Amino acid sequence: MIKTIKLNTAHQKLFEITPQVVNVVNEADISEGLCTLFIQHTSASLLIQENADPSVLRDLEHWLNRLVPEGDALYTHRLEGLDDMPAHIKTALTAVNLTIPIVNGKLALGTWQGIFLWEHRHDIDQRSIIIHILQG
Amino acid sequence: MIKTIKLNTAHQKLFEITPQVVNVVNEADISEGLCTLFIQHTSASLLIQENADPSVLRDLEHWLNRLVPEGDALYTHRLEGLDDMPAHIKTALTAVNLTIPIVNGKLALGTWQGIFLWEHRHDIDQRSIIIHILQG
Amino acid sequence: MIKTIKLNTAHQKLFEITPQVVNVVNEADISEGLCTLFIQHTSASLLIQENADPSVLRDLEHWLNRLVPEGDALYTHRLEGLDDMPAHIKTALTAVNLTIPIVNGKLALGTWQGIFLWEHRHDIDQRSIIIHILQG
Repeated sequence: MIKTIKLNTAHQKLFEITPQVVNVVNEADISEGLCTLFIQHTSASLLIQENADPSVLRDLEHWLNRLVPEGDALYTHRLEGLDDMPAHIKTALTAVNLTIPIVNGKLALGTWQGIFLWEHRHDIDQRSIIIHILQG
Repeated sequence: MIKTIKLNTAHQKLFEITPQVVNVVNEADISEGLCTLFIQHTSASLLIQENADPSVLRDLEHWLNRLVPEGDALYTHRLEGLDDMPAHIKTALTAVNLTIPIVNGKLALGTWQGIFLWEHRHDIDQRSIIIHILQG
Repeated sequence: MIKTIKLNTAHQKLFEITPQVVNVVNEADISEGLCTLFIQHTSASLLIQENADPSVLRDLEHWLNRLVPEGDALYTHRLEGLDDMPAHIKTALTAVNLTIPIVNGKLALGTWQGIFLWEHRHDIDQRSIIIHILQG
């Protein structure tokens, strides 16, 4: 089973998508298998991280913004905006695809794990994530 | 086939788990397929790296500890200990899941590749890694 | 279906391998499935990034070289050359495996996404990437 999630991001942020992914897994109605997520972009990424304390996500974003700041003199790629080249670098440092086992009909996420789309740009309209479910 | 590996880590370190994963693959007894590893935590991660010279692992740990030090004034998430927020960041920069093809009945690891659990915290009791084997 | 791509890299660079991967997917001739890439090395990695504007790739390389420079006094692993330990770190920060869904017989890459082998060393003869295609 293959589904596409569309998300309106509009600003730099970690957007939790766990409920949407769980819905697709429930719909697939299989006992064991693999759930693969793939984001079709080069300036936004996927992340599995703690979804309990919002301070973790905030610190993650601040830390990565400090490591990969806008306006770095190193960047020659500037045509698409100040936030574009940092967004490509941040995407390269995180994930474009995730594979999560399905066990007993459920995503095998740990207690504190949530799935996030990490939008690295400031004003993008829409992002697409493909969810592929395989039985086995 | 799905198995869970439990590991007592107890301190910050790269723990090689290649033999445990190879055992599960041998038990599955298939010729071709995919072996997916998934760690159910947000402050420990998975890594494939050189398992020949221990200085590589040591330098990797020292380098990452310097990039993501404890006690950084940027962190607001401090309730769970000084090592917690750096552990979340290190996990975000490495992998929560790995997928390795099985070819001719064996994991298709390169000559120098080993599979590691990277414990980023100082005193955690136990970590869980799910191993999912799919034929095909 | 399992194929191995061999690539002569010879210098530090992002080498696009999208056409080779597309060829293997076309040959597999399936409608839906998963394409898994696995690089059998610890000092070169895989990356999905923009393949339109070459300045993105150039900036990515310069940025990572600045973050992980050669000759850092932290490294104790120096026997295999000045570029070896940085190459291991860069590999740890990027990906050893990628999984891309196949939808309607095609790799579900976004408009601007290309697949790259990221060679982190200066004079390696050959790199191997395993491509595993699974129907489903």
